[in-house]
Amino acid sequence: MGLQWASSTEKWRSRVEEALRDAVRSEDAYLTEVASHLILAGGKRVRPMFAIAAAASGGADVTDDVVRGGVAVELVHLGSLYHDDVIDEAPTRRTVESVNARWGNLTAILAGDFLLARASEIAASLGTEVAGLLAATIGRLCEGEVSELRTAYNVDRTEAAYFSAIEGKTASLFAAACRIGAIVGALPREQIEALTEFGLAYGMAFQIVDDVLDVTATEAELGKPAGHDLVEGVYTLPVLRALSGGNGLRSRLGAPIEGDELDAALTAVRTDGAVDGSLDTARDYAVGAISALDPFRDSDGAAWLRGAVDDLFARVPV
Amino acid sequence: MGLQWASSTEKWRSRVEEALRDAVRSEDAYLTEVASHLILAGGKRVRPMFAIAAAASGGADVTDDVVRGGVAVELVHLGSLYHDDVIDEAPTRRTVESVNARWGNLTAILAGDFLLARASEIAASLGTEVAGLLAATIGRLCEGEVSELRTAYNVDRTEAAYFSAIEGKTASLFAAACRIGAIVGALPREQIEALTEFGLAYGMAFQIVDDVLDVTATEAELGKPAGHDLVEGVYTLPVLRALSGGNGLRSRLGAPIEGDELDAALTAVRTDGAVDGSLDTARDYAVGAISALDPFRDSDGAAWLRGAVDDLFARVPV
Repeated sequence: MGLQWASSTEKWRSRVEEALRDAVRSEDAYLTEVASHLILAGGKRVRPMFAIAAAASGGADVTDDVVRGGVAVELVHLGSLYHDDVIDEAPTRRTVESVNARWGNLTAILAGDFLLARASEIAASLGTEVAGLLAATIGRLCEGEVSELRTAYNVDRTEAAYFSAIEGKTASLFAAACRIGAIVGALPREQIEALTEFGLAYGMAFQIVDDVLDVTATEAELGKPAGHDLVEGVYTLPVLRALSGGNGLRSRLGAPIEGDELDAALTAVRTDGAVDGSLDTARDYAVGAISALDPFRDSDGAAWLRGAVDDLFARVPV
Repeated sequence: MGLQWASSTEKWRSRVEEALRDAVRSEDAYLTEVASHLILAGGKRVRPMFAIAAAASGGADVTDDVVRGGVAVELVHLGSLYHDDVIDEAPTRRTVESVNARWGNLTAILAGDFLLARASEIAASLGTEVAGLLAATIGRLCEGEVSELRTAYNVDRTEAAYFSAIEGKTASLFAAACRIGAIVGALPREQIEALTEFGLAYGMAFQIVDDVLDVTATEAELGKPAGHDLVEGVYTLPVLRALSGGNGLRSRLGAPIEGDELDAALTAVRTDGAVDGSLDTARDYAVGAISALDPFRDSDGAAWLRGAVDDLFARVPV
């Protein structure tokens, strides 16, 4: 990637920030403050950057509409975080106080709804295809999250259920970001499909890596206690694979755990090849993501997307 | 209204029920069950019937798209009820167990999001104008609810703040229902505006009457304890008007109350002309709603809408 591209991405990032702040402005100053809270806490804005990079991959101009399309997906992500934090009774998010802790569950639910509404309003301004896609994506996100809730503490949760849940709650948003960037950029149909496939595969790899880190990283590395998912009863890919081994993990799970019990369970998950196997699966998805970019050999946008895939694996155990 | 119209409305009602059930079907049977819960509890479906009557007022056919447009607004209403019940920790809704009581807050929040998503998906299928309108309506609903929350227990809440909140949380949905029916029915612009004005004025009257009933009706009449809003600190029009009188109400409010205190506060609200004054305001809105229908003199659809206005006042004290 040339220097010009690097300077472009910085400009795009600031356009994303501006569009995010614009999107949540309400006549009600209080609601604006609450809805802006997580935006001001920062973030990598991976989803809007994917929309931009997708459009650029196919040679489209990065118009304001492309930026706003990516922002719509980011707003869906942020809105879902507001609701997740209510669900988890989380005290903090991204190192700042969570919305629910600061303003209460009531306001957090409504502000989350408001973010989803603003996302839908932007999508509507980009045409019926984008509006329909964004709405369908929110629906899949809910399906994924409900499925995860329903299988909580279930030691017989299948890998198929896991893959389906993370596709809905995580991968569908990355896929939507790429697809919207490609649609708004008016790329040819086959490029739209290829970029959607990239986003979906990237999202699967992203979530698996995240789930591996939850059982392998230290609290200092994660910025939150390790084993959070295990405590919440969310049995992710490395846990499900370890459960199918003969290491006694099954008898430790199935109910809330903490302290020494949690440490013992984490040790069991880490010592049975389940982590390596899960990372292999993540790498398979990553390979799929990279292959999906084959039609975009010489573009800086695609090079940036490939770089994002590499970055995924920078933090994982070797 | 002719016999033919009466038989039509029954047919439309069953088309609305069918479209509602279709809309919430998910690949996930559990989510379908949760999302269908309040639909199966029944309801008058005023919003979709308004969309239909609005289209019919201007002579448009009641196509499936008109029905689905009204259903989208009803789904927004239902989704907001799911979230309201979490906020209020309500044990029941429409005589059945509330979603949060039955499945927990977590599932209730996600199922509410899912209903909003399905509403947006339908709206997207009806074009960018409808999609944009529905999204903006959800945004206004959130603004209205947040404003209501923020002024809870505030004895200095202004009437302007009250009117703005109920316009957002209630009237905007009736306005959207009529407007969507008119847009999908391809009525002329001036008819679309007139029907929107009708819906907005109807919605204001509807909410004021509802707020009056909360302080005047008995628990048996309401199906829930009287004075619920007072207990929650939501000071509605009759309360605000009574507060501006010299009846000592101000010293009783400003904090949660119950039992004898609540009874004394209700008595104070009822005995100062505040109820009559509030009903006069509701009637002013009702007159505005009826006037908005002037362009539709000879239509059965408009006659049905006028009847809905009359029905509003059937339950209030005379």
